[in-house]
This record gives sequence, structure tokens and C-alpha cells, in this order.
Amino acid sequence: MNDISLEQAQAVVEASLAKSREVGTAMNIAVVDAGGNLKAFGRQDGAWIGSIDISQKKARTARFFDMNTGDIGALSQPGGPLYNIEVSNGGLITFPGGIPLKVDGAVVGAVGVSGSTVENDHIVAQAGADALQ
Amino acid sequence: MNDISLEQAQAVVEASLAKSREVGTAMNIAVVDAGGNLKAFGRQDGAWIGSIDISQKKARTARFFDMNTGDIGALSQPGGPLYNIEVSNGGLITFPGGIPLKVDGAVVGAVGVSGSTVENDHIVAQAGADALQ
Amino acid sequence: MNDISLEQAQAVVEASLAKSREVGTAMNIAVVDAGGNLKAFGRQDGAWIGSIDISQKKARTARFFDMNTGDIGALSQPGGPLYNIEVSNGGLITFPGGIPLKVDGAVVGAVGVSGSTVENDHIVAQAGADALQ
Amino acid sequence: MNDISLEQAQAVVEASLAKSREVGTAMNIAVVDAGGNLKAFGRQDGAWIGSIDISQKKARTARFFDMNTGDIGALSQPGGPLYNIEVSNGGLITFPGGIPLKVDGAVVGAVGVSGSTVENDHIVAQAGADALQ
Repeated sequence: MNDISLEQAQAVVEASLAKSREVGTAMNIAVVDAGGNLKAFGRQDGAWIGSIDISQKKARTARFFDMNTGDIGALSQPGGPLYNIEVSNGGLITFPGGIPLKVDGAVVGAVGVSGSTVENDHIVAQAGADALQ
Repeated sequence: MNDISLEQAQAVVEASLAKSREVGTAMNIAVVDAGGNLKAFGRQDGAWIGSIDISQKKARTARFFDMNTGDIGALSQPGGPLYNIEVSNGGLITFPGGIPLKVDGAVVGAVGVSGSTVENDHIVAQAGADALQ
Repeated sequence: MNDISLEQAQAVVEASLAKSREVGTAMNIAVVDAGGNLKAFGRQDGAWIGSIDISQKKARTARFFDMNTGDIGALSQPGGPLYNIEVSNGGLITFPGGIPLKVDGAVVGAVGVSGSTVENDHIVAQAGADALQ
Repeated sequence: MNDISLEQAQAVVEASLAKSREVGTAMNIAVVDAGGNLKAFGRQDGAWIGSIDISQKKARTARFFDMNTGDIGALSQPGGPLYNIEVSNGGLITFPGGIPLKVDGAVVGAVGVSGSTVENDHIVAQAGADALQ
């Protein structure tokens, strides 16, 4: 199994922090490894306390299914094929802000960001993911 | 980080209790501090037992995101940007009745009220929040 | 079922707070009703955050078995008849600081105190319990 | 309430990582803020997965009671005054490796380290704590 290193995970966190400062937000940023387990985390001063758990759940959700969290949310609505999948795995978060992390095309983990609008959360997470490409 | 004192938290509980008696309801009233941890609590005689947990979750939810719980609920509906956010943080309550507490413009905690209609819950919580201004 | 009123529960909290100030400690004080459900709570400024849960568990433990928590702890040691009873009921606390509350000889709830040595916790809880006699 | 900044929390993590490399261990390092909520985290490559939770519980436990986790463990043994306190607060860890973080004498959070012997865990946590003095 290809796996993310601590050095890579910290680079993802720093890239996300840099983008968050550029956007003017206060974020929680979580990186999980290929096994879905927490590898690195940072919370900016003044960031929502409730987003600690959400950022980690976004990262885990993205790795659990190897897709962006928002893509799962499109399938989990009432009447959708994955309705209420959020109650599984101790709680999933399926709105944007979670993105799989890849090295040479292989998923090695995921990043989850929470602390602003879901649009900003996704932008900041994407900046983190781009740091690994 | 500014934090609420016990004296302030008890004043919030008493103001909410006074409003609840005026409205004719039986409420659970919870106050959490800046860290989201319980600071003061009171349950009126005959109030719903199931609202002990809901009032505390409302207070925590309001502090976790520094906004009224009802505002989060407006975003967490099916098709909304925060759909099913309620499964995070060990359970969030996103209908009205939770309000951040501020002193000199800074959030120092939150109050959560549960035991009647959500309209009454919000009115009683607001009376508590107003006691700090 | 005889049950404690909010007025009585708040009197227990205030009597415990007064004793805590006299002893020079910073306490968490919880009162549960006859059903074992939280009725009133207060945390002094600077009191241990970890004692929020412990004070409530002490109060519940005392009501669950209608005896002082320390008496249960004497029975739950290795080799004792109630060994590791602490893992039941979502977690019991069996060291001193939890005392049943009685009115006219009938148990109407319990008080739990945590924040100092177990000796001080018990003294402050007893002051609360005495407020009801 | 004084609180730790992200910059300070990351300095604690880096100081602990440096000490861990010096000692030759693979550690999980968690920092919580004054409210007991996760602020920064890093896991070295090859570190025990089971220590993710333990490092965080050590940090929380140290902040919950403002003392080293090992000091609590000395009191929670069979026959001790805090026997089985570990079942509270969703699980406490009371062996060494958790240390309160202070700035100018005030507790602003705590660090928890897990991944080796408890002696090594404590040494690595202490190096992190020393980074703030």
C-alpha cells in the first residue's frame, strides 16, 4: 500500500493554511493516511471548534470512498441511492471540503477542511491536495 | 480567549427561567463556556427529560459555530450545503434554541434551551442571552 | 415518586458552592433527580474541565444505588464483590463525592461534587446534602 | 482564559518530533487548547495507529486536571483515591505522556505523546512542553 509520509502530510497542511490565509478564513485542516487514520492536523486561531471533528470526518469520508466528499453528498440526498449514508462509520460528512490525496495516481490518504462556506472549504482543501501532485 | 464566569452563566440561567415562567413553559436551560464545556444548568419541574441532552447539544452547537442553531438548520436541510452535519461532534442539534453568548462583542459561550416549541425555546434562550449584554 | 424540585436542587448547588468557597476549592457541582437525570449544575471559575463529567457521574452513581459513591468504591476493588462495576451504565465513579439527597427520609435525588481531593469533594457534597434536611 | 496559538502548538509538535528522532522512536503527538480541544497533531511514519487516540486522550486528560497524566495514574490504582477514574470523560489515559502546557505560569493547553515506552512518551512530551517556556 502506498502511504503518505508525515513530511507530505505536513506539506498538505501548510499549503492549506497558506490558502486559508489568502482567502481570509480560519480553518481546521486534517490529513488522514491510506488507512484512513489521522496523520496531521492544524486549527487556526479563532476557527470553529465544531469543525475539528468535521474536518477529520471529511478527510476520512474522502478516503473511505476515494472520492470528493461533495460527490458523495450528491448521492445521499432523500430519494438518492446512498440516502443517509452519513450515519455509518461513526458519522460521515458528505458536503464539500474532503479530497483524496494522490501520488503518481495512487490514493495515499485524504485531506479534510472545515471552517467557512463549503465553497471555501473545498478551495482550501484543493490547495492542500495540489501540494502533493 | 474571553470566557464566561459562573456568575454570568447563572444570570443567563435565571433570566431564561424568568422568561420561561412568563411564557408558561417548563424548560431545560444549559450554558457552556468558551471551550464548549458545561458551565451551568437548570431544569424546571416537569420539563421533558429528553430535553436535558438537547439543551446541552444546542448550547454546544451554537458555540461550536458561533451562530444560532436555527441558522445552521437552515443550511443542513436536504439539498443544502451542510446536509446532515448533525451526525458530527457526537450529535448536533440544529433547530432553534441555541444562541451564542457575547460580552463586549466577543463570544464567551452559548446558551441552549429545550422543552417547548422551537419558537418558545428560542424566545427563552434569547432572554438568557440578553442578560449578558 | 418523591422528587427534588428545581428550587431544592439550586439550594443544594448554592450550599455546596458556599462550602467550596469556604474550603478554598474550585468545584463542579451536579444534582440529579429521583430518576437519575440532571436537574442543576454549576462549575466554579477555574474548576477542572474533566470534573464536569465526573461530578455528574458521581451524582448518578449515588442515586443509582442510593448510597455514597465511596461506599461503592470499597466494594469494587480487585477481589471485591462489585469488581469493576465502573464500566456499567456508561461509566460510574465510585470514589467519594457523590451523596444521595433525602427529604423526610426518602431519596429524591443525589449530589455529585468533583474538583479537589476526594476528601474535599465529599465535604462539599455533604454541605449540599445538608441543605435539604 | 489564556489560550495557545497555532504557531505555539506547532512549535510544541516540532520540538517533540525532534526529540523523538533523537531518541529513535515513532510517535503520535497531540496538542489541545485551553478548552481541551485538538489544536495540532502529527504522527511519524510507522508509529502505532492505536496511539492516535491515546495521544489525544493523554493531552485532554492533562488539561482536564492540569497535571501530568502519570500523576493521575498514581492516584487511580486499586485502593487509591481515584480508582477507575479512567471510565469518565469518554475515556482518560492516566499513564505518563501527557503534560500541561504553560505560558507565563498559566495553563494554555496540553501535549500528549504515545508510541513507545511510557518513559519515552514522557521524555518526548516534556521536550514539547519545554518549547513553550
